[in-house]
Amino acid sequence: MLFARPLAELIAELERLPGLGPKSAQRLAYHLLRVPEAEADRLAEAIQTAKRKLRFCDVCQNISEAASCEVCLDARRDPTTICVVSEPRDVIALERLNEYHGLYHVLHGLLSPMDGIGPEQLKVHELVVRLSDNVKEVILATNPTLEGDATALYLNKLIGPSGVKVTRLAHGMPIGGELDYADSATLLSALEYRREM
Amino acid sequence: MLFARPLAELIAELERLPGLGPKSAQRLAYHLLRVPEAEADRLAEAIQTAKRKLRFCDVCQNISEAASCEVCLDARRDPTTICVVSEPRDVIALERLNEYHGLYHVLHGLLSPMDGIGPEQLKVHELVVRLSDNVKEVILATNPTLEGDATALYLNKLIGPSGVKVTRLAHGMPIGGELDYADSATLLSALEYRREM
Repeated sequence: MLFARPLAELIAELERLPGLGPKSAQRLAYHLLRVPEAEADRLAEAIQTAKRKLRFCDVCQNISEAASCEVCLDARRDPTTICVVSEPRDVIALERLNEYHGLYHVLHGLLSPMDGIGPEQLKVHELVVRLSDNVKEVILATNPTLEGDATALYLNKLIGPSGVKVTRLAHGMPIGGELDYADSATLLSALEYRREM
Repeated sequence: MLFARPLAELIAELERLPGLGPKSAQRLAYHLLRVPEAEADRLAEAIQTAKRKLRFCDVCQNISEAASCEVCLDARRDPTTICVVSEPRDVIALERLNEYHGLYHVLHGLLSPMDGIGPEQLKVHELVVRLSDNVKEVILATNPTLEGDATALYLNKLIGPSGVKVTRLAHGMPIGGELDYADSATLLSALEYRREM
């Protein structure tokens, strides 16, 4: 056995994380063995606390500490506009702009028939339910990728007939890029020139 | 507040890890929120178990579960040869060759006066103590870098007068490279052609 067992187990768990190969996992494991025990404990506890304390907002499905998230509870937000995104990190990207004052809806994924991901695997039903609540506009802010565009087309077909205005983020972003990595200026112009579908 | 507090805390702890920027830390945090709770728990527990169960071997200072490590306890290993390395991961790199059958000594660092790391900050005293035990050869297998060479020169001066044969890994490796990343063939030739200092 090359590694002592607790070390081998730590490396194996770290290797399961996305973007970490065997070498990076080993380096991180040795790093954790070197740091003070209190620091390693803080990481371990942060993982467990985050898992136990966080849930999805009942309304918008974003990550939340309570049954409803801070955005949904904020009376200053405009409840007539819902911005639909794929991931919680996309909400962060849009909130950083300080320009959007409506509500959100997080799908937790994009349509991908090849991977067996249909509307039932996404928070689509939870979005449809919200449309009766005096909603005037739904902004489709999925990534400008194959899956993001397919998801936007699907949602437009689904929501369009209800009479709600459906818009899509302008293609100011580089095609094939990811919302999460766009710079604020690009993202802002994409938001500003959103077009009706 | 952009992130829910437990999420912000998890991201902050992940960002402290070497090689992880804010974006990678966020991606890992969201990944951990998505995986089953049991999987996140396994990672958290692996961190804490590794911290609590692992220690340094009393003899060679490598990472060990017991007071003496498996290599030091293995009667088939040649106790007359000690291979001195900087880090525990260097022991792994050499053990993978299945060619070296002596013992090890882990310094846990390299001399670096600029960073205030002198012989007292390394496991040098613990190495000197072992030389009385019928040791015939000490192989200096520190990285072929500025600090690695300086450490080898220092140890040669310290150990040489005792009459023990002191050798250095052959410079088959690219200068400036790190032992941990060398391919096995290169490392093997460096071990084979080690030269007496």
